[in-house]
Amino acid sequence: MVITVPATSANLGPGFDTLGLALNLRNEIEIVKSDYTSIEIYGENAEYLRTLKRNYFVEIFMDHYKNLTGKEDSFKFKFNNKIPLSRGLGSSSAVIIAAITAAYEMAQVPYKKDRIINLALSYEPHPDNITPAALGGFCVAKLRKNRVYFLKKFIPTYLRAVVVIPNRTISTQKSRNALKAHYNLKDIVTNISSASMITAAFFSEKFEILRNVVEDKIHQENRMKAVPELFKVREIALREGALMSTLSGSGSTFFNLAYKDDAYSIYNVLRDNFKDFTIKILQFDNVGVKVYN
Amino acid sequence: MVITVPATSANLGPGFDTLGLALNLRNEIEIVKSDYTSIEIYGENAEYLRTLKRNYFVEIFMDHYKNLTGKEDSFKFKFNNKIPLSRGLGSSSAVIIAAITAAYEMAQVPYKKDRIINLALSYEPHPDNITPAALGGFCVAKLRKNRVYFLKKFIPTYLRAVVVIPNRTISTQKSRNALKAHYNLKDIVTNISSASMITAAFFSEKFEILRNVVEDKIHQENRMKAVPELFKVREIALREGALMSTLSGSGSTFFNLAYKDDAYSIYNVLRDNFKDFTIKILQFDNVGVKVYN
Repeated sequence: MVITVPATSANLGPGFDTLGLALNLRNEIEIVKSDYTSIEIYGENAEYLRTLKRNYFVEIFMDHYKNLTGKEDSFKFKFNNKIPLSRGLGSSSAVIIAAITAAYEMAQVPYKKDRIINLALSYEPHPDNITPAALGGFCVAKLRKNRVYFLKKFIPTYLRAVVVIPNRTISTQKSRNALKAHYNLKDIVTNISSASMITAAFFSEKFEILRNVVEDKIHQENRMKAVPELFKVREIALREGALMSTLSGSGSTFFNLAYKDDAYSIYNVLRDNFKDFTIKILQFDNVGVKVYN
Repeated sequence: MVITVPATSANLGPGFDTLGLALNLRNEIEIVKSDYTSIEIYGENAEYLRTLKRNYFVEIFMDHYKNLTGKEDSFKFKFNNKIPLSRGLGSSSAVIIAAITAAYEMAQVPYKKDRIINLALSYEPHPDNITPAALGGFCVAKLRKNRVYFLKKFIPTYLRAVVVIPNRTISTQKSRNALKAHYNLKDIVTNISSASMITAAFFSEKFEILRNVVEDKIHQENRMKAVPELFKVREIALREGALMSTLSGSGSTFFNLAYKDDAYSIYNVLRDNFKDFTIKILQFDNVGVKVYN
């Protein structure tokens, strides 16, 4: 069995813990029943991941598989990772969603993606990454009484993401310090209205308006200070035609939305200016986690 | 010339200063050129309005008409008001939008509704009432650098509003006191996610999800304390099948969204329980301000 799962970009600036979308940058995991357990890892951060004593995917997969079947079978796992770690592209949500889905598939227990999303919640409390990892597309998600509610919209094929992945992470400590304990009403209204406008723009496919309505006052600017080049990234991306340009998750990646025809010039200028950063033009994913038997 | 303009329900609970929709409850104003100015007022609060020295509609209309034409003509105004005053149903936005629109029409100067909305802003800083008053439908609006950005969605005809209009207002003072100076991040996320989910639900016409995602932590509960019967109104409306039940604007009216078939039972039970309150089943308006020449 092969399972693939997309990277995700969450928050989308003002949509804190609420808005997320799926990118066509996928981790692929091959799982085969075997007489003994073995793990092969290739791709992003493979060397680092090989040094870890515990494999997060395998642990979650085995827990659920045992729960569903009552059996302790062995498997051969082969990882081909494309989603970078700790860069705000949802690598951990991708692992969780893929592992639970794989367990249900391998156990041959029917499931709905709604169930996978809600199971994922016990590992990852942020619904704005796990929802698009499971479903693809642009997702609005809300956590209420330990349940995720969500709505999804397909993202048109004429759009591209230009993602800028810095050569370093934003430390958890710095990310936490960026969040204030309290916010005033003016800033809150900025975020409520920005997040609602982004939602309306995606659902009505009126993307032009995004150029004016994605301001965030909760977390973005403070987090960007940890990688100050990001201010220049945003300035350049918007100047070169990006529809919106926001921090991806809690960073350090920057997410730029653009029409297909503008993506290359944005990419080129950013690449010339940030030679140490990884820059990719990505299509959007409208499918989410996917299994090939 | 006759101009009609709808009542509006704004905030919609968590969508503070952002979300609003138009109700088919309309003020109608007849304007005819005349040798001298005269004003007739009928309908809601007519006796009170007749005692005022200044007529808000006439002042705004005359300002704009003079600006557009350079002339100081006289008119006969006849008001037939249906929108109650100071109850959170957008009576003041209705007056402003209708007056500016009427001035452009009477001056025979072409205009777009976008222009009317942005002119209205100098009288009324809340875009979530003025936008649906001008456009009808469900509107997401955002104020940025003294400009209103907005997106609109038609509201399906199988939905109704059951509005509960208390026999008293919430004083401006009490309404202001209901707003705290600062809010914590958890409460803010509740509102960002609720407002985004309401937006997604209206734009994708998936209204069932509203039963679980309209919680507000910014203003609603505190304002409801000024008219404590509203807690019971909400409880009954939801029990009888309302999809959502939120304060309209800053109150005192409560707005209940329901399928057409559920509206009558909600109406009946609310009427039996709140004999002093005015309760109406209203269709939604998808047109906004409208002129008949």
